[in-house]
Amino acid sequence: MLAFTASAQQPDATQATDAKAPAPSMQEILDASPASDWRTLDPANTLYMELDGGRVVFELAPQFAPQHVDNIRTLAQEGFWNGLSIYRSQDNFVVQFGDPNADAENAKSIGSAKAHLPAEFERAGEGLDFTVLPDADGWAPQVGFVDGFPAARDPATKTAWLAHCYGALGAGRGMAADSSTGAELYVVTGQSPRQLDRNITLVGRVVDGMELLSVIPRGPEPMGIYEDPARRTAIKSITLASELPAAERSALELLRTDSATFAAVTEARRNRRDDWYKVPAGHIDLCNVPLPVREATAD
Amino acid sequence: MLAFTASAQQPDATQATDAKAPAPSMQEILDASPASDWRTLDPANTLYMELDGGRVVFELAPQFAPQHVDNIRTLAQEGFWNGLSIYRSQDNFVVQFGDPNADAENAKSIGSAKAHLPAEFERAGEGLDFTVLPDADGWAPQVGFVDGFPAARDPATKTAWLAHCYGALGAGRGMAADSSTGAELYVVTGQSPRQLDRNITLVGRVVDGMELLSVIPRGPEPMGIYEDPARRTAIKSITLASELPAAERSALELLRTDSATFAAVTEARRNRRDDWYKVPAGHIDLCNVPLPVREATAD
Repeated sequence: MLAFTASAQQPDATQATDAKAPAPSMQEILDASPASDWRTLDPANTLYMELDGGRVVFELAPQFAPQHVDNIRTLAQEGFWNGLSIYRSQDNFVVQFGDPNADAENAKSIGSAKAHLPAEFERAGEGLDFTVLPDADGWAPQVGFVDGFPAARDPATKTAWLAHCYGALGAGRGMAADSSTGAELYVVTGQSPRQLDRNITLVGRVVDGMELLSVIPRGPEPMGIYEDPARRTAIKSITLASELPAAERSALELLRTDSATFAAVTEARRNRRDDWYKVPAGHIDLCNVPLPVREATAD
Repeated sequence: MLAFTASAQQPDATQATDAKAPAPSMQEILDASPASDWRTLDPANTLYMELDGGRVVFELAPQFAPQHVDNIRTLAQEGFWNGLSIYRSQDNFVVQFGDPNADAENAKSIGSAKAHLPAEFERAGEGLDFTVLPDADGWAPQVGFVDGFPAARDPATKTAWLAHCYGALGAGRGMAADSSTGAELYVVTGQSPRQLDRNITLVGRVVDGMELLSVIPRGPEPMGIYEDPARRTAIKSITLASELPAAERSALELLRTDSATFAAVTEARRNRRDDWYKVPAGHIDLCNVPLPVREATAD
């Protein structure tokens, strides 16, 4: 077959012996990376969503949304989402999950979670390890990465915020900016809806199992909300990793976004130099930068 | 429920009577548009892919890839894809279809289609009705729309090309720039892979039924290619609309991208002014601009 990205995604290893000595591929860069450029997840900031098809792993971002993350921890510890569903899937936009009756009289209790939280759309730019992506961005004065999360900041207002890239996890809200509790959550499954940045509280992102969410059948237009319960995707449970025995946790390693390896990966993707590409772009968008995750090596 | 985009996507019609008289929503703009701002598809440039789940409608772009489109018409007329499959689905990237054995001895004949075509990565910028999007773009000197297609151009080299947005339809190729025939095609299902622009021939885009392609289960990593035939998605047929009786054609209308209505829709999305949004972005990316399609009104 004409596997048009065979070389684009996974350049042939034989290229390394090419007389032209091309730049290393992303995979070669990762294979050569020191162990110290990788990190594991903090179990207190890791959620597991168990679906019939498998596990989705989320990393939470308390450095951006501390009160939402606190509430989400409480909701998970008290089993709020167990037996609820993914009740919305809108093509090229989001899936959304929680209690489809949240606004109705038969809403499920959120237990000891707080019923009111402040909006956490942005925070002070200071105190963050912000790795700047030098590429131009149309949505924000500056973009980059904080602790593995795509983010943006404004040097003029000295504020920073998380960016709506593929896999971003956010807290649904109503008309009031401070109407989210973290009980209703959404995940971006389409072209980065960056217009939502600073308009809604992002609380983390998917780091593994995204393909379980992205293929969920789309619901009726315009918003993809299934009124028919039979068409919803059941959530068996959402659990904090710290509540599980170590043996039941996903053993993942994430590339540190402040590492030299990550900078090299970004550059390899900004200017593809393998033989398949004829015109390297010389640019990369924030939401196109890969965020490598691998199975932890047993040792 | 906290339907966080209820107002973002479909602002409440009651807003129009608000004392603040907010700017009209996208739907209000569309509802008020003159019929002349809409167009129908040319059946000679329209492909129907029939899947078990329904029909995907593609619009072809002969103004950008005339030789590929010619070959694709021949392949469709001779039933090349009938009984073949979608054999690749890579998360956040593409689905790909055609003959999974194209490179093998048992490859299906491409009939009277040409076995060799030139690369059609870009064309002369002159002779196109290019509607410029004023917003900054990191991938190209200038972006906009040509006859309904997201596109880019370079005033310095006086060239123009189609852009890899969600739903873009392209012709898979091997290592040689001119190794595509149009028999193996792909559709973008993830974050716009604009690095492919000018590196591969785009031949059109999906205008209806995208949700049938975007939910196809992802194949094995890294490239999402199903070696197990049972996991492929069967293609019943791919047919040129012009080969079907008028009654069997999809009756769609597309908003003209050179119309005042399209400019107003783009501005409404660039600066969301309904009550849900607290911080209008003041920007829109090429691949975030909606390309409205509606059922033709019977008359």
